[in-house]
Amino acid sequence: AARVDCQASHPTLCLPAPIDCSIDLDEITPEGQSASHAALAGGAPTVLIACEATAVFKTRADIARAKAVLEEHLACDFGLLLHAPPPGADLALLERAHGAAGLIIDFATVHKDLPVSHLHAVMDAFPADRPIVVRATGHELASALLFATMLGRRVHFDRVQTPADVAAVALARDQGYPVSCGAALLDLFPPAPKQDTSDLPPLWDEIDAIDVISSGHGAVLSSGRVSCASALLPLVLTALSNGQLSEEDVRAKLHTNPTRIFAIDVNEDTIVEAVAKEGCMLPKEAAGEYAPFHQAEVSGCVSRVMLHGCVAYIDGKFADNLATVAGPIEVHDVPATRPEPPVTAAAT
Amino acid sequence: AARVDCQASHPTLCLPAPIDCSIDLDEITPEGQSASHAALAGGAPTVLIACEATAVFKTRADIARAKAVLEEHLACDFGLLLHAPPPGADLALLERAHGAAGLIIDFATVHKDLPVSHLHAVMDAFPADRPIVVRATGHELASALLFATMLGRRVHFDRVQTPADVAAVALARDQGYPVSCGAALLDLFPPAPKQDTSDLPPLWDEIDAIDVISSGHGAVLSSGRVSCASALLPLVLTALSNGQLSEEDVRAKLHTNPTRIFAIDVNEDTIVEAVAKEGCMLPKEAAGEYAPFHQAEVSGCVSRVMLHGCVAYIDGKFADNLATVAGPIEVHDVPATRPEPPVTAAAT
Ligand SMILES: [Zn+2]
Ligand SMILES: [Zn+2]
Ligand SMILES: [Zn+2]
Ligand SMILES: [Zn+2]
Ligand SMILES: [Zn+2]
Ligand SMILES: [Zn+2]
Ligand SMILES: [Zn+2]
Ligand SMILES: [Zn+2]
Repeated sequence: AARVDCQASHPTLCLPAPIDCSIDLDEITPEGQSASHAALAGGAPTVLIACEATAVFKTRADIARAKAVLEEHLACDFGLLLHAPPPGADLALLERAHGAAGLIIDFATVHKDLPVSHLHAVMDAFPADRPIVVRATGHELASALLFATMLGRRVHFDRVQTPADVAAVALARDQGYPVSCGAALLDLFPPAPKQDTSDLPPLWDEIDAIDVISSGHGAVLSSGRVSCASALLPLVLTALSNGQLSEEDVRAKLHTNPTRIFAIDVNEDTIVEAVAKEGCMLPKEAAGEYAPFHQAEVSGCVSRVMLHGCVAYIDGKFADNLATVAGPIEVHDVPATRPEPPVTAAAT
Repeated sequence: AARVDCQASHPTLCLPAPIDCSIDLDEITPEGQSASHAALAGGAPTVLIACEATAVFKTRADIARAKAVLEEHLACDFGLLLHAPPPGADLALLERAHGAAGLIIDFATVHKDLPVSHLHAVMDAFPADRPIVVRATGHELASALLFATMLGRRVHFDRVQTPADVAAVALARDQGYPVSCGAALLDLFPPAPKQDTSDLPPLWDEIDAIDVISSGHGAVLSSGRVSCASALLPLVLTALSNGQLSEEDVRAKLHTNPTRIFAIDVNEDTIVEAVAKEGCMLPKEAAGEYAPFHQAEVSGCVSRVMLHGCVAYIDGKFADNLATVAGPIEVHDVPATRPEPPVTAAAT
């Protein structure tokens, strides 16, 4: 398709390929399609998908099969994050993680109580030039950050929970280590019928140090699996309307930072048009056990999503046959940067 | 006193000032004297003392008073490790920790469930050129190690529990960070009426990466406060007899490494004479709730301890008025070293 530009007929925000870096699928099955529709409605035509089932993958063929199912059914571009194998498993598959967009270590679910020895072994085994996603908080996050810095790994901390989590990541990132962090919607926006600026969660104190905002769709909470991918851009635009984020923040946290962190090739003709205005209503959630933002009143909406130059979503409706347009993304090997030696106050 | 040399009349090991870096006192009271007698009997005329009561110290005068009580009653040279204040407390006292030999953060007792934010704040507040002792295992150890490396702090990990703990510390130490670790007797020597080499705890797999062996006297276990300072050198000599440690290891782990790690001024006339031979019996423990090595058969004994040139302990008997000979040690400010940038495999 030819290079697509935004239509200028309304006060529109035109965003290059926003990326939702935090979507979980229950299983790698055709049902994944509904999450990809939700992502498109949420203004993210590119997603990083994780699925617990990948933790027991043993061969390259397992990865290839999962990618084929996703490619056949997903309505948006995707990268597959492979769950790290459990303790005792062979780590040879990690050597290149062929065909996967990266590795994920999730202390909230599959890797609950992961011992330090296995965390160390997994980080040792995974190539330094490929991205790792870690979901953790507190000392477990700091522990993963230790091995990231000591072993020189590229690590993105997804779904950070506290200002202390963000401060720990920022401490290492500011010293030049290739680490970053992202927050999920539910940790930034308390569920409410109408989104406003009163009573913001404490993570907003560290918003400038948060590289990425993602949906966190599919996370397993006490109330069930959360369904919220379609709320991503509308909630981010609400924060823009309320002055909590600038337009530059929106581009950085949805596109520029994820693209750099994961070394993703962006399709130039994948763009999203959105409007920041009062009184929008979030779409009905098609599926999911817990839909915290279901039909909430927000201050922004996605008007059009162009996928590889084709209209994929417009005014609440999806185009047909999107799976033939969408496909797997490629992430590039990027050497982990080596920081200059830290200058400590005492070393004079 | 004039420089003292070892008596050469029997097959003796002559050690310069062995240091027991891991002794806890219940309270700072005259009873501390019994721990110092146990340390002398265990071949350690210099000890680092921690006491939970110091966690609530608020002024320099509190520190000075505690040191005065110890100086009046302890039978050996000592340094006081100040417990880090609890969350919410003023950290200003840490600015230099005047008069203390260092700071201690103990996840096993006082600092159980210490949040990452406070760990970070304490490490920020404590001067980089002063030593910190951390007692932790698993992700909490790795978390403390993260802040040690990122903030450039000198940190000794006392009472490491697992080979993974040691491997994490070694990873950072081998990159040039000023971190180190020590093991306690109970984690190296299972209590038994006769010490032998069968069924060694897994920590021995990493013995070469363990910088220090200390008693761990005063640790609070499920069976009560452990009393074991008098077993230190006899058990280490048993490992020497059994070929698990070399004479060089013994000097390094009891003297050279602690001296360097804590930047301690050693008194040249403080030396210990000991004999590695079969069929020694450990002395009766004078006090303590749990004495795991009480009268165990070992392969080494302490024959003489010279403190500042005076005989302090000989053939099971203590000299009088030792508190007038013994005194506080001084630790020097040593800038935390700055390592060269890590060379990662990927950076070619
Ligand atoms: Zn659908
Ligand atoms: Zn390693
Ligand atoms: Zn771009
Ligand atoms: Zn295309
Ligand atoms: Zn006594
Ligand atoms: Zn800080
Ligand atoms: Zn020496
Ligand atoms: Zn003297």
